[in-house]
Amino acid sequence: MDFKALIQKKRDGFALTKEEIEFFAFSAANETVPDYQLSAMLMAIFFNSLNEEETLWLTDAMARSGDMADLSAIDGIKGDKHSTGGVGDKTTLIVAPIVASCGVKMAKMSGRGLGHTGGTVDKLESIPGFRTSLSTDEFTDIVNESGLCVAGQSGRLCPADKKLYGLRDVTATVDNMPLIASSIMSKKLAGGADCIVLDVKCGSGAFMKDKASAKALASKMVEIGRGAGKKIAALITDMDTPLGKNVGNSLEVIEAVETLKGRGPEDLTEICILLCAKLLELAGKGSFDECKLLAKAKIDDGSALLKLAEMVKLQGGDENYILNTDLFPKAEFSRDVVADESGYISSMNTEGVGSVCVALGAGRQRKEDDIDPSAGIVIEKKTGDKIEKGDVIATLYCSDEALFDVAEKQYRESVFIAPTKPEAIPLLLDVVE
Amino acid sequence: MDFKALIQKKRDGFALTKEEIEFFAFSAANETVPDYQLSAMLMAIFFNSLNEEETLWLTDAMARSGDMADLSAIDGIKGDKHSTGGVGDKTTLIVAPIVASCGVKMAKMSGRGLGHTGGTVDKLESIPGFRTSLSTDEFTDIVNESGLCVAGQSGRLCPADKKLYGLRDVTATVDNMPLIASSIMSKKLAGGADCIVLDVKCGSGAFMKDKASAKALASKMVEIGRGAGKKIAALITDMDTPLGKNVGNSLEVIEAVETLKGRGPEDLTEICILLCAKLLELAGKGSFDECKLLAKAKIDDGSALLKLAEMVKLQGGDENYILNTDLFPKAEFSRDVVADESGYISSMNTEGVGSVCVALGAGRQRKEDDIDPSAGIVIEKKTGDKIEKGDVIATLYCSDEALFDVAEKQYRESVFIAPTKPEAIPLLLDVVE
Repeated sequence: MDFKALIQKKRDGFALTKEEIEFFAFSAANETVPDYQLSAMLMAIFFNSLNEEETLWLTDAMARSGDMADLSAIDGIKGDKHSTGGVGDKTTLIVAPIVASCGVKMAKMSGRGLGHTGGTVDKLESIPGFRTSLSTDEFTDIVNESGLCVAGQSGRLCPADKKLYGLRDVTATVDNMPLIASSIMSKKLAGGADCIVLDVKCGSGAFMKDKASAKALASKMVEIGRGAGKKIAALITDMDTPLGKNVGNSLEVIEAVETLKGRGPEDLTEICILLCAKLLELAGKGSFDECKLLAKAKIDDGSALLKLAEMVKLQGGDENYILNTDLFPKAEFSRDVVADESGYISSMNTEGVGSVCVALGAGRQRKEDDIDPSAGIVIEKKTGDKIEKGDVIATLYCSDEALFDVAEKQYRESVFIAPTKPEAIPLLLDVVE
Repeated sequence: MDFKALIQKKRDGFALTKEEIEFFAFSAANETVPDYQLSAMLMAIFFNSLNEEETLWLTDAMARSGDMADLSAIDGIKGDKHSTGGVGDKTTLIVAPIVASCGVKMAKMSGRGLGHTGGTVDKLESIPGFRTSLSTDEFTDIVNESGLCVAGQSGRLCPADKKLYGLRDVTATVDNMPLIASSIMSKKLAGGADCIVLDVKCGSGAFMKDKASAKALASKMVEIGRGAGKKIAALITDMDTPLGKNVGNSLEVIEAVETLKGRGPEDLTEICILLCAKLLELAGKGSFDECKLLAKAKIDDGSALLKLAEMVKLQGGDENYILNTDLFPKAEFSRDVVADESGYISSMNTEGVGSVCVALGAGRQRKEDDIDPSAGIVIEKKTGDKIEKGDVIATLYCSDEALFDVAEKQYRESVFIAPTKPEAIPLLLDVVE
């Protein structure tokens, strides 16, 4: 197949055939078409987009371009959950054990953090001994034994997506809804679950800054998932404010544990219950409202917390850290950010807060960067909260005191204070199913 | 400068600044930006194009990206002529000596043939000893001595254009008027002439198949040339039929000599006189009509032919080949293509005729191919000519008899015969100045 002719076809506004889309994806995965032709195709797609069929074919071909999880050896219904990423988003650590406690198998592959958003794998690795790099057999065995496993993505997961995403990132061709949706969904299809709940974040801390684009992405992903035969739904949730209080790796594990003990922040608890309920509903465990009660009961009776501890143990980690989070080492240094005026927090630049966290050592600017598991931020006052001059609005944690001056300045610039209380934004903005 | 940000700016429909365009051109020339980013930029330009200023800046930057001809050591007005390429287009071999005979210096750089069109350098190299690879000093000295030199393009002529053209060719980003025009004009600006006449070919044997696109290209090139301070005009001329009778390297030199002797085909002679007259007019030698008479006089008194012979001698070639073209070796084999029906030639696929010539060994499919100087076609009947069954419509020449069957079949498929005489197409379709 002549790839230049395919570029020209897309450039001229024609739809590609299934065979042509597959040729594109497999050529990217196997690097049999040069990068300069792939990037020209991506820019042509940016301008002329992909129709519904092309998007589904691309997603499917990218999923099949590498290793597909074979969950056939796992009994029962398999669930998966995906968040488009935000600041303080530790929902996987809470939702996965709750859903597993309800009898839906969670065989989940997660990524590492990049840029201003964190990654579940990094958070779990703050627990001593915890392994996310598992063989297929280990993964399957752990799910079969406990109903829950969270592993890192294998190097051969969706190589076509890996290649194309890498190119999009450096050629200004990221911002195309079918490409964004197919990139995410190819990994979900390769993950092999039957039911998928998507958490599409929206607001200043999310990739989608406004509700219209978040809804468009959610619709596109649900369309792809349904086209591939999955039970799927998306919640569009607020990320204009960080989720919960804690941002940073071990800090977020600690907050997840608190939430599983029923003592978590209200916003985080609510979103987790909604995500659990939607996934349980898709898995046939009852109506949405019945599933909310079911999820809450697993917090109340402590079974979800024990499920998380069991998973940590089975994946080589020290489960005592879950049962007693005081074991997590504290960051060497801390600094309080104190309000220098009174009023209300009217809004937050949540991406800015995420960047402060990266600057403190909790995240990565580049893929190869190391992270500091105990660094991060505990946010004491969030959007809508009343503050008095002198109140601690946040505490910064890190291992290098020299980082505080810049981080504090940047944190202050990310928090806006006004004399009146802002209108509250609901946590759940929409449901797409 | 962050090149990704420049791609995004162009992608989003904004004009680039002079500095940004220069960064683009110089990064391409020096290969300091990866190919996949250059090709993404080219596709963004394909969609959002370049405005008049951006096009001029790009042309100028590409011209300055490598060696610029320094014609300051050459006295008097310097002229240049460029054809967008066609089949049987040997006008440079005729126009350059006529114009030089009129006292306008022709310091011309030419290219080799590629695809279905021939190149002046290949044609001249069919003369034994002729050298087109000259040092700057040799080039200047020859022009100063005789007023005429035709050299090959140096490897460092417009490296930015070379890089970008190579990428455009494989990423379906050739078809953009500002990019086509700036590619041609960058080489003209680097050539350093004061007056430039452009011959924009139009029809089945040209890159521009219709008059509207030929005119758009001509206008864009004239705009660029004028913007760069050149005296410039473009003739839009017919290439729906091959020019003259002979197609192939030494065959075209022979026909050029015949034309300089006043015995050339009518169409070729007419176009050459028009091109000479326009260039002489730009150089201040009189009105267009006066310059036509001036050019004709240089054919009639034999001075243009002697000028060509002088140039051949000064560039190391054997001038006896010009004075007696019987010296050119004949191709080993020939085959007549005989009409199998009577009627009129209603039209010709002139690109097809050019491809037959390449198939016979006279041209190149790829840059590294060798060429056969004596191979080619002598066309006996062209569009509008009456033919009787049994007439020879063309004779094919080559060094390998085995090539004839396919070539003859392909030639026949390129010639369309109808019972009635087609309407004549004028040779000069338009003038842009």
